[in-house]
Amino acid sequence: MTQQDTIVALATASGSGAIAVVRLSGSSAISIVDTCFRSVVKGKTLAAQATHTIHLGHIVENDRVFDEVLVSVFKNPNSYTGEDVVEISCHGSLYIQQEMIQLFLRNGCRMADAGEFTLRAFLNGKLDLSQAEAVADLIASDNEASHQVAMQQMRGGFSSEIAKLREELLNFASLIELELDFAEEDVEFADRSQFKELVERITFVLKRLIDSFAVGNVIKNGIPVAIVGEPNVGKSTLLNALLNEERAIVSEIAGTTRDTIEDEISIGGIGFRFIDTAGIRETKDVVESIGIKKTFEKIDQAQVVIYLFDSVKSISDLKTITIEIEKIRNKYPQKPLIVIANKIDKVDDISISKLHSEIPDIKLLSAKTGFGVEQLTNALLDLINTGALRNNETIVTNSRHYDALLKAFEEIQKVKHGLETGLSGDLLAIDIRQALYHFGEITGEITNDDLLGNIFANFCIGK
Amino acid sequence: MTQQDTIVALATASGSGAIAVVRLSGSSAISIVDTCFRSVVKGKTLAAQATHTIHLGHIVENDRVFDEVLVSVFKNPNSYTGEDVVEISCHGSLYIQQEMIQLFLRNGCRMADAGEFTLRAFLNGKLDLSQAEAVADLIASDNEASHQVAMQQMRGGFSSEIAKLREELLNFASLIELELDFAEEDVEFADRSQFKELVERITFVLKRLIDSFAVGNVIKNGIPVAIVGEPNVGKSTLLNALLNEERAIVSEIAGTTRDTIEDEISIGGIGFRFIDTAGIRETKDVVESIGIKKTFEKIDQAQVVIYLFDSVKSISDLKTITIEIEKIRNKYPQKPLIVIANKIDKVDDISISKLHSEIPDIKLLSAKTGFGVEQLTNALLDLINTGALRNNETIVTNSRHYDALLKAFEEIQKVKHGLETGLSGDLLAIDIRQALYHFGEITGEITNDDLLGNIFANFCIGK
Repeated sequence: MTQQDTIVALATASGSGAIAVVRLSGSSAISIVDTCFRSVVKGKTLAAQATHTIHLGHIVENDRVFDEVLVSVFKNPNSYTGEDVVEISCHGSLYIQQEMIQLFLRNGCRMADAGEFTLRAFLNGKLDLSQAEAVADLIASDNEASHQVAMQQMRGGFSSEIAKLREELLNFASLIELELDFAEEDVEFADRSQFKELVERITFVLKRLIDSFAVGNVIKNGIPVAIVGEPNVGKSTLLNALLNEERAIVSEIAGTTRDTIEDEISIGGIGFRFIDTAGIRETKDVVESIGIKKTFEKIDQAQVVIYLFDSVKSISDLKTITIEIEKIRNKYPQKPLIVIANKIDKVDDISISKLHSEIPDIKLLSAKTGFGVEQLTNALLDLINTGALRNNETIVTNSRHYDALLKAFEEIQKVKHGLETGLSGDLLAIDIRQALYHFGEITGEITNDDLLGNIFANFCIGK
Repeated sequence: MTQQDTIVALATASGSGAIAVVRLSGSSAISIVDTCFRSVVKGKTLAAQATHTIHLGHIVENDRVFDEVLVSVFKNPNSYTGEDVVEISCHGSLYIQQEMIQLFLRNGCRMADAGEFTLRAFLNGKLDLSQAEAVADLIASDNEASHQVAMQQMRGGFSSEIAKLREELLNFASLIELELDFAEEDVEFADRSQFKELVERITFVLKRLIDSFAVGNVIKNGIPVAIVGEPNVGKSTLLNALLNEERAIVSEIAGTTRDTIEDEISIGGIGFRFIDTAGIRETKDVVESIGIKKTFEKIDQAQVVIYLFDSVKSISDLKTITIEIEKIRNKYPQKPLIVIANKIDKVDDISISKLHSEIPDIKLLSAKTGFGVEQLTNALLDLINTGALRNNETIVTNSRHYDALLKAFEEIQKVKHGLETGLSGDLLAIDIRQALYHFGEITGEITNDDLLGNIFANFCIGK
């Protein structure tokens, strides 16, 4: 991949808006725009302007005026990519966006690959690899928690910690390798007790980071919650109350919600993925049976289960309800289960007492009026360990980092064991080099084209 | 509506992208952003920065970092709205966009109404009304012709012509009204022959502009073309070939394309709206009959008709085809009709000779292989009078302008008649004032809140 050519892409979301931003980066970015730009202030080319300045004018080709635009000039190395960058803020018509990009392609630009702007930023040392990855996470973030974690990672919190440990470790590695050169003289440049202390410190940090991945995973992907219950108990209405929008199909006919409907909602800054299921009512109907099978599949995938029933219909036969609850509890003893009596607005006080006495820990709800929805969301939040998040600790969300951390941890344990058993310097050095390698994988000191290709292919074009 | 408060809106298309731009305008725009912005270069507030400069930093609230952003500062009157404007280029996550806007709302901004940025630009004299309207047209433009017309209007080509004539007319109006003050002395300040010459000039310009509306309308809305033919002759395939994408449902079962499918395609810079119809085959099937009725309704709306038939199936019975063609020709004698024999790749040379001899002006096509598609698009372009467009003449596309021009024309005719019949100055003055009023409606010298409300309500929020 050559880094000298100039790339162009739409930087803003595709679609029609008030404005759109077309971005160029590369050694010819400024000169290419200069050939197409006619400033309202005559005389000065963009090349002659200071970095971080904005210029009003028209994008033209021969006599044709494409648009009135604002052009922002960023001169290397003071830009996102570290190269010369020009951002053109044009009117947000799809047609103009396309024509503008075509124009720059005709004038010597090349269409940017997915993530190529950020790749260049990485290759030019503006970001390390984990920071670059956080850019994509940041754009994908859709709730407070995932946003906060990505922001923290992008600001280098996590990788700077790794980089610091890596440097210390590298230092010791050098000293131990130096000892090997003087092997005959039996000197010890690397203080073994200081080295042990460092290894302990690294072990501690790695363990904390590795443990954080469970929380990180939940934060990044949202917590799957299955809503289980017989048809027509109000699952879709609850989902709608939770989503505060009409995504699920609500119908009076029992059994209509056969397909599962998934949607994500942010509660208290945490993403929850609600999964509407067809319930587990015993039936002879083939289609219904398929629904029940699907329900159990969905419970398998969920981290939390909500069991919902209709208090009006079930008040005279709570036994069926308790049997179904037991069925779920027995099948999934580890999974948190929240039992909810819905349509509580339609039953009397005696029924409510009965519900409380026969089903322990029951929650009362009226999905229709909204009564009990807040208590439910609170109960969901209580289930999640958000301590780490609240304490602003570094959290690992990227499975590539997790893998590298696990491998580094493994190697560090070998080093630790080697130190304890008085392993010879040359063998110790091999294990240290391995640990360093995995550290480097995270921050990008160690990369290869395949790895970079994989990472940046998941970016959007224009970033 | 008070113009002092500071408004905020997302300026880029909604959705996820590499970056998004949040825009603030108003007297507190810079100070509000200053409270939330922590520059990477310490010490200077945004208020202390020069206009048209860009600053890297973080948007923060208390200890929470929202995003790393680029902030562009525009100081009044050198901005789009003429007020202080700040544009914040942030990461394009929906979550960040929303949080960012919420943050500014908490800090004293108000959500912008649709088109409010452009309305302020108009009220602050940065644009006249017809230029402001062209901004919306420009964003909506989806082909070269509509883009060019909107661009021309936005650059003031049309309204500056009107404004110049208005000024000259206003001059004469003043002189004639002055004469009224000196009525007893019977003086003539306004040279009647010069005035006649001006009225002639205005008449000429108005007529040209009014006539251009027919072309303008076509350019703005696209030219509707009905594709008529029996089921399964390949209408959907032709539509797909023209659209170069799979929008229409193509099926082997005759009669499946009962609903009309509309799509717009830009050919040679002109927008064509293709209308796929169910054909006019005689049938007893009720659903098919409804389809035929719909076909004729669609032909009513179309400016051009394409009649398409299957050469393989019809070669032995070209009589049915010629009857159907006659039917359309008789019903719509004024409408251009293009007759096309499709699936020409499947017939032999003798059949082709037969087609040419029995149906004059027939065009041969294979929608499947693409043979003849280009000839068809050329034929369509030939039908459209794009002379005005090619000559870069001013074209009126806005029906509000058209109405005002018609009314102004009417009043100018009265003035002309008055001049010819020696109408008294006081009566002449009334007609001139009326004409001036309608001129002013176009450029916005004459406005009212209802009119402005109507115009800017059609804008997107953020523009």
